[in-house]
Amino acid sequence: MKVPGTKYDPERDMTRDSKYRTPFGDLKVFFGSSAQHLKASICSHAGVPAGKYERRTFSNENIFIRLNESVRGQDVYIVQSMSSPVHDNFMELLIMIDAVMRDSAGRVNVVIPYLTYGRSDKKDQPRVPITARLVANMIETAGADRYITVDLHAGQIQGFFNIPGDAIRAFYLLSDYVRDKRIPDLTIVSADLGYAKPARNWGEALEAPVALVEKRRVDNAERPEVMSIIGSVEGRNVLLVDDEVNTGGSIVNAVNICREYGARDVYLAFTHGFLTKLTYERLSSLDVKEIILTDTIDQPAEKRLPNMTVLSVGPLLAEVMMRAHEGRSVGELFNE
Amino acid sequence: MKVPGTKYDPERDMTRDSKYRTPFGDLKVFFGSSAQHLKASICSHAGVPAGKYERRTFSNENIFIRLNESVRGQDVYIVQSMSSPVHDNFMELLIMIDAVMRDSAGRVNVVIPYLTYGRSDKKDQPRVPITARLVANMIETAGADRYITVDLHAGQIQGFFNIPGDAIRAFYLLSDYVRDKRIPDLTIVSADLGYAKPARNWGEALEAPVALVEKRRVDNAERPEVMSIIGSVEGRNVLLVDDEVNTGGSIVNAVNICREYGARDVYLAFTHGFLTKLTYERLSSLDVKEIILTDTIDQPAEKRLPNMTVLSVGPLLAEVMMRAHEGRSVGELFNE
Amino acid sequence: MKVPGTKYDPERDMTRDSKYRTPFGDLKVFFGSSAQHLKASICSHAGVPAGKYERRTFSNENIFIRLNESVRGQDVYIVQSMSSPVHDNFMELLIMIDAVMRDSAGRVNVVIPYLTYGRSDKKDQPRVPITARLVANMIETAGADRYITVDLHAGQIQGFFNIPGDAIRAFYLLSDYVRDKRIPDLTIVSADLGYAKPARNWGEALEAPVALVEKRRVDNAERPEVMSIIGSVEGRNVLLVDDEVNTGGSIVNAVNICREYGARDVYLAFTHGFLTKLTYERLSSLDVKEIILTDTIDQPAEKRLPNMTVLSVGPLLAEVMMRAHEGRSVGELFNE
Amino acid sequence: MKVPGTKYDPERDMTRDSKYRTPFGDLKVFFGSSAQHLKASICSHAGVPAGKYERRTFSNENIFIRLNESVRGQDVYIVQSMSSPVHDNFMELLIMIDAVMRDSAGRVNVVIPYLTYGRSDKKDQPRVPITARLVANMIETAGADRYITVDLHAGQIQGFFNIPGDAIRAFYLLSDYVRDKRIPDLTIVSADLGYAKPARNWGEALEAPVALVEKRRVDNAERPEVMSIIGSVEGRNVLLVDDEVNTGGSIVNAVNICREYGARDVYLAFTHGFLTKLTYERLSSLDVKEIILTDTIDQPAEKRLPNMTVLSVGPLLAEVMMRAHEGRSVGELFNE
Amino acid sequence: MKVPGTKYDPERDMTRDSKYRTPFGDLKVFFGSSAQHLKASICSHAGVPAGKYERRTFSNENIFIRLNESVRGQDVYIVQSMSSPVHDNFMELLIMIDAVMRDSAGRVNVVIPYLTYGRSDKKDQPRVPITARLVANMIETAGADRYITVDLHAGQIQGFFNIPGDAIRAFYLLSDYVRDKRIPDLTIVSADLGYAKPARNWGEALEAPVALVEKRRVDNAERPEVMSIIGSVEGRNVLLVDDEVNTGGSIVNAVNICREYGARDVYLAFTHGFLTKLTYERLSSLDVKEIILTDTIDQPAEKRLPNMTVLSVGPLLAEVMMRAHEGRSVGELFNE
Amino acid sequence: MKVPGTKYDPERDMTRDSKYRTPFGDLKVFFGSSAQHLKASICSHAGVPAGKYERRTFSNENIFIRLNESVRGQDVYIVQSMSSPVHDNFMELLIMIDAVMRDSAGRVNVVIPYLTYGRSDKKDQPRVPITARLVANMIETAGADRYITVDLHAGQIQGFFNIPGDAIRAFYLLSDYVRDKRIPDLTIVSADLGYAKPARNWGEALEAPVALVEKRRVDNAERPEVMSIIGSVEGRNVLLVDDEVNTGGSIVNAVNICREYGARDVYLAFTHGFLTKLTYERLSSLDVKEIILTDTIDQPAEKRLPNMTVLSVGPLLAEVMMRAHEGRSVGELFNE
Repeated sequence: MKVPGTKYDPERDMTRDSKYRTPFGDLKVFFGSSAQHLKASICSHAGVPAGKYERRTFSNENIFIRLNESVRGQDVYIVQSMSSPVHDNFMELLIMIDAVMRDSAGRVNVVIPYLTYGRSDKKDQPRVPITARLVANMIETAGADRYITVDLHAGQIQGFFNIPGDAIRAFYLLSDYVRDKRIPDLTIVSADLGYAKPARNWGEALEAPVALVEKRRVDNAERPEVMSIIGSVEGRNVLLVDDEVNTGGSIVNAVNICREYGARDVYLAFTHGFLTKLTYERLSSLDVKEIILTDTIDQPAEKRLPNMTVLSVGPLLAEVMMRAHEGRSVGELFNE
Repeated sequence: MKVPGTKYDPERDMTRDSKYRTPFGDLKVFFGSSAQHLKASICSHAGVPAGKYERRTFSNENIFIRLNESVRGQDVYIVQSMSSPVHDNFMELLIMIDAVMRDSAGRVNVVIPYLTYGRSDKKDQPRVPITARLVANMIETAGADRYITVDLHAGQIQGFFNIPGDAIRAFYLLSDYVRDKRIPDLTIVSADLGYAKPARNWGEALEAPVALVEKRRVDNAERPEVMSIIGSVEGRNVLLVDDEVNTGGSIVNAVNICREYGARDVYLAFTHGFLTKLTYERLSSLDVKEIILTDTIDQPAEKRLPNMTVLSVGPLLAEVMMRAHEGRSVGELFNE
Repeated sequence: MKVPGTKYDPERDMTRDSKYRTPFGDLKVFFGSSAQHLKASICSHAGVPAGKYERRTFSNENIFIRLNESVRGQDVYIVQSMSSPVHDNFMELLIMIDAVMRDSAGRVNVVIPYLTYGRSDKKDQPRVPITARLVANMIETAGADRYITVDLHAGQIQGFFNIPGDAIRAFYLLSDYVRDKRIPDLTIVSADLGYAKPARNWGEALEAPVALVEKRRVDNAERPEVMSIIGSVEGRNVLLVDDEVNTGGSIVNAVNICREYGARDVYLAFTHGFLTKLTYERLSSLDVKEIILTDTIDQPAEKRLPNMTVLSVGPLLAEVMMRAHEGRSVGELFNE
Repeated sequence: MKVPGTKYDPERDMTRDSKYRTPFGDLKVFFGSSAQHLKASICSHAGVPAGKYERRTFSNENIFIRLNESVRGQDVYIVQSMSSPVHDNFMELLIMIDAVMRDSAGRVNVVIPYLTYGRSDKKDQPRVPITARLVANMIETAGADRYITVDLHAGQIQGFFNIPGDAIRAFYLLSDYVRDKRIPDLTIVSADLGYAKPARNWGEALEAPVALVEKRRVDNAERPEVMSIIGSVEGRNVLLVDDEVNTGGSIVNAVNICREYGARDVYLAFTHGFLTKLTYERLSSLDVKEIILTDTIDQPAEKRLPNMTVLSVGPLLAEVMMRAHEGRSVGELFNE
Repeated sequence: MKVPGTKYDPERDMTRDSKYRTPFGDLKVFFGSSAQHLKASICSHAGVPAGKYERRTFSNENIFIRLNESVRGQDVYIVQSMSSPVHDNFMELLIMIDAVMRDSAGRVNVVIPYLTYGRSDKKDQPRVPITARLVANMIETAGADRYITVDLHAGQIQGFFNIPGDAIRAFYLLSDYVRDKRIPDLTIVSADLGYAKPARNWGEALEAPVALVEKRRVDNAERPEVMSIIGSVEGRNVLLVDDEVNTGGSIVNAVNICREYGARDVYLAFTHGFLTKLTYERLSSLDVKEIILTDTIDQPAEKRLPNMTVLSVGPLLAEVMMRAHEGRSVGELFNE
Repeated sequence: MKVPGTKYDPERDMTRDSKYRTPFGDLKVFFGSSAQHLKASICSHAGVPAGKYERRTFSNENIFIRLNESVRGQDVYIVQSMSSPVHDNFMELLIMIDAVMRDSAGRVNVVIPYLTYGRSDKKDQPRVPITARLVANMIETAGADRYITVDLHAGQIQGFFNIPGDAIRAFYLLSDYVRDKRIPDLTIVSADLGYAKPARNWGEALEAPVALVEKRRVDNAERPEVMSIIGSVEGRNVLLVDDEVNTGGSIVNAVNICREYGARDVYLAFTHGFLTKLTYERLSSLDVKEIILTDTIDQPAEKRLPNMTVLSVGPLLAEVMMRAHEGRSVGELFNE
């Protein structure tokens, strides 16, 4: 298996590469409740077994963690996604950090494929919290030394952390896949004005023009929104891109407005699929050719729609973890 | 309404008492999702309306809070209990702290009638977390300046906080109520060896002897527990005391062992009732005269058993909040 | 003078308004080297004289500050912009914070109309700093309790601060001015894809359509950029909007591409003008009807171009400072 | 010498065990003024010489420390007990931490066999400090990265630290010794209700029943205490257990009440002996068969009573230090 | 009583001065064990009674503090000197800070007339601590918001604190007293080269020339010191000045070398007298006209030598405390 | 090349010395804008190439840094002096720290040959900052783990840092050079009373007597200063010593007063030369035999005066860096 768009060489046998020292102690990886689907691929890539621990939930809903192996002086990676139930998974992550820190780990790394509260990243109206900063503070206070995550809602969230980290991009994974499809007459459409710059990157990668869905309030009292498209999709095949899909409501609207403006086939590509039952219903009734996403959040096989393609971030995460562990460049992996 | 066992004078009209200055700005009280049942009694006692805010949960389970009134330079109290769903309620509390802090409140107080993770307060085995300290750290990091809580599982949890706080005791509330029942031939029984000291306080207050339920592992391999009673309950009416009841499993065992050792009537008194469906089933089939607890966790009327008495901590909390706000002694309230 | 688009009532005499208590001590305002141009309007609005201090630069370039009046227990506001020389002004701000903090001020507020390093807000390539977070950390570490600023490059920079603050928007100031011009057939053009959302807000406010300038790398080796416009400007009067203008290079390009795509008159509106000699040359030779900006950075009269309109943020800042001082809502000022 | 009750293998030659890497730099151990009695056994076990330093006390009582060997990049252990004079020893510890930190040690570990202020661990009355937390904060602020200690007064004191640590138990050491005595008809008696749970552990280990000494205030005005025993000691040999003995007052009372309730031989076992002249007088006139304690606090040979058995924690501490140094499990040592 | 050399007006009745608001809550002053001698003068000056608390020392030397009055929301001053026993007094101070902080004081000020470890303020040789910084860190970590102290060994120690403070000088007190003596033909002699600058200030104040005692190592192996005087004392009356006297050894040497160089009468003036029994012996046998010092450290009447004059810092401290409390300038007090 | 006065052995080949482990990862050294003149000698001594990075200044004066090589898990040294332009160089240093920290360096060391704001190290008048502490805080907050610097203005500035560091002295470098000149009838003259102790060290090293220049205000209103010399320079050759020369004003005065008091030849020696155009003019017209200084600040060949001798601190810094990197004693280097 190859990590698309990266310099990752699957033939390299990490564990025997004497060139790289591991100044941070031995490698140990634990997988939280929401990252079980990444265990096999990460462990196989990194060549280490998953760390053992027990987890219980008491009747007062308190989560109890007990590591079954010592992590003293080791370079520990805790993999946990912020999927449903979000707050339980978040608290579980913090508790695991505390357990690992108190057992005197050499370094505590958290690997969070999908970080939550990304949209609560600024005070765009008075008297609201900036929960994404709160989340970063919690992770630091609990005792994490580093973080690894995928496609933050806004790059600035890196700056919410005062610890080093790698915010890697699933873009190459997704764009390599789409490029291989060789869709003709393609126009990239951003479902949101705030996603214009990443859409432009899609455009560059696929040598396609870009258009944008614009939502606008026209009447302050009632707040109905009017949608339109900036740029043109007339007679074009459309790739709708976004970072995260939740209810799917705005995706449905975006598809509709594309159709209204004369689009032909519509494809969807996004990184994080926090898909509820309602989302599945909406997506399944939607006239799109293919829905392409990643497994930063687990997408169980039985729930997937027929036109859904799930690309795994497992090998990419494993490669980044190994490089972080060995003290080698991660940026180099992305030709940067 | 009177707060039993305290010097609380319900006739005193706080808002007109010119003797006390309020150096911390005006009083403002917000009630989180899990403290709605305390709103009426606290607001009526304190003579202020509840702070207004909106709360939404997005489809990615993210909680959104927006205060509907400015708290700049004010002495804000956020009341939230750690009842079910625990982690949602905890995160909601942290988010409210962040919103209030970022709106430049003069002081941020959290009022947590039932604090969670109290039993995860030490490393009594290797490689476990101390989640109670983690919880305290989270509250401080989010921006709380002070805390008020009721009956911590261990008094030492106060020391997990580096901010000042009031850990008040529901003991007077409960023991005044029981004393008024004038139960003859009463013996206090602690359901747990770790609760021996509070049981002695019960004994002192009700002038009754004390006995203790002892659990012991007899066979290391299989870990079956054998129970016995230290002290005597033969022919005595028994008041089983504890700080918190969850599944009710150990309470059922304690009642049974009391019966086995010849007890007559059994009463139950505890502060925090984190009662699940299973607990209700267990308690309802248990032969006890009366179950006395408080509403640090909401006990909705429709779920209460016929032999259940729920004493409200609302007036007591309100009095403590007013004293904290006005800069008057809280200890004085308890004749201390 | 009226603050456009806000509820600011110039008739209200703040200093005699007994309704508002000032829990933070008396008001005191100091103006740093780069905020002298705001002194008159802020002091007149707030009804207080500017705080006195002496400032010297030693021959080893060290800045020396000595306050000439005590600030013990007072609510101090230090106004300083991050204009040229940027690092001297930044260090001067930090030194003033230290002096005020060590003289036991009741509260230390910094008012930074133009905050620097806003574009260094994320790691969009490997091995770069996030200097905007560093800047926020410096301000907090020096001892600031609150900040007030105008139009951050990204709203997320608010989350780089762990102290409360007001990131106010000059948008109303600018858009009210432009609306009054009643320009027909107007299209809003964002000079940058990353500014698409604020451009949409302009569109809503002026009921005008939006178009965007897109820059794209077409040849990786040489990195020449190709520009185009998403949306249409054909036969339209154009208002080019952005948050900050430095060299003016991309503005020149944006004007040219608009002309190329058939635009008629072009207007420019932006908040922060960090204008160098080169910028003035470029702007003066540019065929634009009017250049509208604010004085978050001083724009000395003698340097202004004939078609340049500079709107002052002074009254707006003064109003926000007074509200922060008095513990009144700032959000309310913006109908929010 | 063997560490009783543990898996400690005295034959293992640590220094030649190539299996274990020492990621924390070389081992270096310094012994403070109050830990000189542990120097020989710890150094011999760990196979390293004691670190050299000079210590002077100036006439203004200031302690001066100068390390005579560099500790740059090394894994340093500072052993110091909080015995008399407590505050001098505590300050000496903090000063040594500072010296070691400022000489750029790789890791700073403090080994505190007896930690002081354990009983000041909660606010059980108003307006008192939580000095145990203060002590933990001081140690962390001075620059310690880890701590090792023995038998905390309350397990929760671990949670007062935000750094990892090992709070090891002398229980195995003491209980193995007592078990070997094969005392018939033995009942474990806790001298304090708060020590009920550890007493139960003694009971489990020695397969003996448990009883508890209860102290109770009967008259609020005069505060005389009345003692009784919960459970039975009639005709039993008694092992009185506690964590720490100071004046010996409550021990004398406990022995007396045991006698009163019909006990036969009385043995005493406790971990920490902070024994004053008065204590020695009391213990020497007390009718007990044997007093068993450890040397977490130095018990000089010349002061020991004839019926006193002092078990050394030296080998146990050395083993824990070696495991911490080598990054091996400490929990494993206790079959946990 | 008048504070010499300051603008202090003893007639001003502080408590009735409506001009000054007290934004920090009511004033409360506690006196630690080592500051009892300052209680009367400070309380009388400030017009408030001393705060009540109880203090006990347990047999394990642990200090226990319990405040007998609530300090919630008050502006608390804890007065404690670092006299003998230094570490007990230091720990007592920290414990009082913790108690006051945890009782929710509005502001915690420490008043330390004599701060200890001033000479351990730099690493002038390898592998030594900087204990003065450690002491500052301890005070901050315990929870102090401000400090007031007298004549630091080095002014830079102010920079060891990150909290605001007033490091006042006893210089005016001492120099006014000496000036009134009108000693003819006076030369100021600094007992230490490091005290040259303060000696010059003495010279300016008394219009007298300055000379300095120089100590020099002449033979590295044996480290014998040779003394000489830079400048001239021939036929002059000499005022030997220093900041602190401990053993008196260097003072004896300085007096001897002055005599040797032909001085007439010798006077001594210093701020802090940490005088041991040995010091008294040395000073009493020394041929000096007058020894002038302050009571930053208590100098009990029965121990004072006949030629000793002790000037009290009480009124000066009280005035500074009142100004700090009321938010008025302290610098103004010293004509600065 | 040999480091004078130290045990530095230029023959030792560091890179092949298998005796020393490097527990901090591989060595990497970056040179900031103001340390380019030290690059060759440090890299050659340490046997490593200089780390590569790019640096740009945008038109809004923002500095941009991008490391061209990964520093993950490495022991990074950033060399930067606080020479002109001071605040740009300081900010560049902080930005480099941030970049290195965020790229997950194993340890971040800053090497600052000349640290700025050393004279702003105390509050010697009211309402001034302590900027040297602010500077230390900035460096720590940015993420430095250690610092290396040369000749602090006051040794106490070490205590402004809470991280370990090496404040090495250029004294041996300078005094070895001067000793070799064998100047007869030499008297050391300190240009400032506050420099009396280092002058005494010069005196010891060169076996010469010491005299001091004294400046005194004689009339408070006008503040004219009167200079004199304590001690004697009559007929002596004089070595004027100081730590830093800026404008040279006080040096000119000191030379003049020495002449006035009858000195013969005058030599100058100081560590840091922050020399402006004005300083060069003054120094060039001054009648001194030789001006001896170091290159803690770059002294470009073209600007040097004919009688100027610049000794390089490069080899000394390189040796200290290597020892810090390898975990060997630095103090040992100075026979300490």
